Amino acid sequence: MTIILGIDPGSRITGYGVIKKVGQKSEYIGSGCIRLQGDELAPRLKQIFDGVREIINQFQPTEFAIEQVFMAKNPDSALKLGQARGAAIVAATFFDLPVAEYSARQIKQSVVGKGSADKSQVQHMVTYLLGLAAKPQADAADALAVALCHNHTQQSLIKMSGQATKTVRGRLR
Amino acid sequence: MTIILGIDPGSRITGYGVIKKVGQKSEYIGSGCIRLQGDELAPRLKQIFDGVREIINQFQPTEFAIEQVFMAKNPDSALKLGQARGAAIVAATFFDLPVAEYSARQIKQSVVGKGSADKSQVQHMVTYLLGLAAKPQADAADALAVALCHNHTQQSLIKMSGQATKTVRGRLR
Repeated sequence: MTIILGIDPGSRITGYGVIKKVGQKSEYIGSGCIRLQGDELAPRLKQIFDGVREIINQFQPTEFAIEQVFMAKNPDSALKLGQARGAAIVAATFFDLPVAEYSARQIKQSVVGKGSADKSQVQHMVTYLLGLAAKPQADAADALAVALCHNHTQQSLIKMSGQATKTVRGRLR
Repeated sequence: MTIILGIDPGSRITGYGVIKKVGQKSEYIGSGCIRLQGDELAPRLKQIFDGVREIINQFQPTEFAIEQVFMAKNPDSALKLGQARGAAIVAATFFDLPVAEYSARQIKQSVVGKGSADKSQVQHMVTYLLGLAAKPQADAADALAVALCHNHTQQSLIKMSGQATKTVRGRLR
């Protein structure tokens, strides 16, 4: 069984989304946010690390996907985002989960069909694709979008490799 | 007993330095580098996290000090440095070590007596202050300098608070 944890790390809020691969489709398992408390850096990073570990313990994902950052706005926000990403990725490696990275463009292309889609379109399509009754909070929607992108991308890779050789199978990173 | 682990994180090499507080002075315990292998981000961050945890297990520090980054050069290097810092700091919080941060200026001022000192002066003064037979490698020297700065700063704080009230004592962060 493939269960994918998508993470949208941030220096204030880290979103998470968990989906299960069911045939060609994705089924919603859970989503939410880790809201960081306090001002000190180390306890804040610990909250991300412990929070992601707790989510992994709860949902037992088999794969981990995170947004790749190509162009950060400025050095200061890049440093803060980097620290949050580092804490989240280390939590995944703590459980030996394979870590996949996707660019914002890949994620939007995969979920909305348009690399330049805006946040509300992503939120809308995540809600539609997973058949949710209500729109998830923006950070949780972004995390679910990363997880969906990972599932779509894997299936395309498996299809492509299947057509080419019929031998390559299983988990592709 | 106060044992301080100083860390100089980097996206290629992470330096570490361990000193023991002996009266007013610092005694050298150990130092070295974690050189990251491979190209993939997650395994590299895992190497920092596991490496720092191994060092903590080996030297049993009671405190952890790391350089604070104020002005990163550019967004790309800031993101990479942030990820490395995040992995190192999370390793410290994993053992509930108190984490102290010092700016490059504070560290140089404390070790060389001049906030604008260059790397070779830091290397020279670390070698002298710890009575080392040979100069440590540059990243290890930087890590030892952070640890020395933490020890000096704590002692000044204790002295100041002692003069002011005679009641504030113990570990100051």
